[in-house]
Amino acid sequence: MKTQVAIIGGGPSGLLLSQLLDRKGITNVVLEKHTRDYVLGRIRAGVLEHGFAALMREAGVGERMDSEGEIHEGFYIATQGERKRIDLHALTGGNSVVVYGQTEITRDLYDGRARMNGAVIHEAEDVQPHGMESDAPYVTFRKNGESQRIDCDYIIGCDGYHGVSRASIPADRIRTYERIYPFGWLGLLSQTKPVSPELIYARHERGFALCSLRSQVLSRYYVQVPLTDKVEDWSDDRFWGELSNRLPSDVAATLQTGPSIEKSIAPLRSFVAEPMRYGRMFLAGDAAHIVPPTGARGLNSAASDIYYLYHALLAYYQQNDSSGLDAYSDKALARVWKGQRFSWWMTNLLHTFPDQIPYDQHLQQTELDYLFSSQHALASLAENYVGLPF
Amino acid sequence: MKTQVAIIGGGPSGLLLSQLLDRKGITNVVLEKHTRDYVLGRIRAGVLEHGFAALMREAGVGERMDSEGEIHEGFYIATQGERKRIDLHALTGGNSVVVYGQTEITRDLYDGRARMNGAVIHEAEDVQPHGMESDAPYVTFRKNGESQRIDCDYIIGCDGYHGVSRASIPADRIRTYERIYPFGWLGLLSQTKPVSPELIYARHERGFALCSLRSQVLSRYYVQVPLTDKVEDWSDDRFWGELSNRLPSDVAATLQTGPSIEKSIAPLRSFVAEPMRYGRMFLAGDAAHIVPPTGARGLNSAASDIYYLYHALLAYYQQNDSSGLDAYSDKALARVWKGQRFSWWMTNLLHTFPDQIPYDQHLQQTELDYLFSSQHALASLAENYVGLPF
Repeated sequence: MKTQVAIIGGGPSGLLLSQLLDRKGITNVVLEKHTRDYVLGRIRAGVLEHGFAALMREAGVGERMDSEGEIHEGFYIATQGERKRIDLHALTGGNSVVVYGQTEITRDLYDGRARMNGAVIHEAEDVQPHGMESDAPYVTFRKNGESQRIDCDYIIGCDGYHGVSRASIPADRIRTYERIYPFGWLGLLSQTKPVSPELIYARHERGFALCSLRSQVLSRYYVQVPLTDKVEDWSDDRFWGELSNRLPSDVAATLQTGPSIEKSIAPLRSFVAEPMRYGRMFLAGDAAHIVPPTGARGLNSAASDIYYLYHALLAYYQQNDSSGLDAYSDKALARVWKGQRFSWWMTNLLHTFPDQIPYDQHLQQTELDYLFSSQHALASLAENYVGLPF
Repeated sequence: MKTQVAIIGGGPSGLLLSQLLDRKGITNVVLEKHTRDYVLGRIRAGVLEHGFAALMREAGVGERMDSEGEIHEGFYIATQGERKRIDLHALTGGNSVVVYGQTEITRDLYDGRARMNGAVIHEAEDVQPHGMESDAPYVTFRKNGESQRIDCDYIIGCDGYHGVSRASIPADRIRTYERIYPFGWLGLLSQTKPVSPELIYARHERGFALCSLRSQVLSRYYVQVPLTDKVEDWSDDRFWGELSNRLPSDVAATLQTGPSIEKSIAPLRSFVAEPMRYGRMFLAGDAAHIVPPTGARGLNSAASDIYYLYHALLAYYQQNDSSGLDAYSDKALARVWKGQRFSWWMTNLLHTFPDQIPYDQHLQQTELDYLFSSQHALASLAENYVGLPF
């Protein structure tokens, strides 16, 4: 098989790039090791910055997002028994975010790929990129027990933190930066009316909590838990009780509870690999960088990678200009690190840390006090939350 | 002896409060354990925020500051071989700072006190506050071997971190917060033309450096050093060499060196004591809180304490209204903590930390990258540097 761009990983990043390239006549194949249903079953981010939403529209798959997704012009930070609103719209001069589950995005991208007869190969086993340092890279994999090979100009690694793409780069050609947080998020999905139409990030001495949502009938709540906790330790009742404890009492009073549809614990990690290029292979999204979910940067950080890659590949194929590809890693990383900074800041602002000295605990509250006393600090938070310019 | 307000400590805070109160007819006595020359010999801060300068004028001692002090409308941050200017004036809508040495401030306050025949008792030994929880507090001390006692309405502790005021508060009535930094500042004063008319804060992999000044013929430079270093380890030559290494090469090329007039190592510490009141004794300035010098908050944090105390005492003596005194601790601490936050942030931004993981090192550079890419972040820095509103 021969194509221009081989994309490893069929999550939102890989599918979005595939869709964007295909619409410009750049041939590509997406290789995904899981089934379509597995990919759709992953419960992930739901807050999209406007730049991501714009890319979805450019890819011709923004219609359902625009009709069913909810525009959020603000969110809340709760501390010391009350919540205060961050007015994203006013603070950014009209910007906002779209709340639309990652599952829905993936579904829309699958539909988009299907409408164009896009090549998305699921259950591709033993995917392996080769010859990235040569002029003739290729990817091998097995499908239905049969070995296959795709020759291509470029390989794009969109296969996440645990994927084969980054793992195939020699250790002396990549440098990694990592920070592990001493806690996780226990998340619960329930078919209940969200306690608030806008997200609530709660700082509490018992630990962080987040009230999020996927739609007006699908709530997503989180509580910070020690890394040693297991999902089995948390009955639904215990979860709802703990969540209530961490919310301002007027919010907790209106909390609608119900059976969990999904419940899981995710560790929090910051991670960046540099550079995001190895010869003719480029990394994008989680394959190159991970953020803790505080601040909703995960999917959005991937979006800017896709934006830069898309335009770089376009310039290469349409004008034989490879400067965008050469600049990709530096350009992408500059924005990636700012997303890392913001996610780290939000995480530090709102969580309890087991070994925190009293001085730092007090400083954390002061950070919030200063934030709410300063239009400049609020505007800085807001510009990061809606997404810095590409 | 009887007075309305007994002030322990004759540094700038105590003298300024004494001067302000005296001008409103509120009697007071300042007790200072050192000689006048000793107090004047302390080389300290030189960057005054406008609120401090306004207080000096209100105290009738701002004339020389206004004619000899230099208005600085910006400063520089140097990193990765170049320096960028923080335009305080533009970012704050017209605000600035005054560079005028603490020694000069103290001298002006002494002169002001002398002109009014203010009671400033130097070499007061064994100063001790008493009866703070009663309605009749008093202070005892010895002068020229003779025991003395001052009865008063209120005692103000302006006697610094090591002073007797805070030490006299029972341990269960005060709570302290502290952060020690794993490095110190080696400072050198020289009669040379400053390398830059505006301050330069330099972040460098060898450690932080600061180019400050007291006047156009008096330079004050600093380099970050390990806490284990001794002044004896640092010849003037070694100092100038190390400073040059940490500055952008175009700056280092114009550095004028010369013999040191003073050279010393100061540790960096963050410290806050809460509350800032014990019965009829109030703490102000370094007696209640210390910041690392990065960000120039030390003297300026004391200024807001004096501002609040002055107005609270005025309301009490002129209108028999003690609400200001009752609110003092909370009000002062709210601003004190914001100064702590800013000093901590500037310190973290610019220093190398021995145990810093690579992720955090990279994040430090990202913080600077973000800062210089965002008007909001720059404006936030600027509003803190010129001083948040009282």
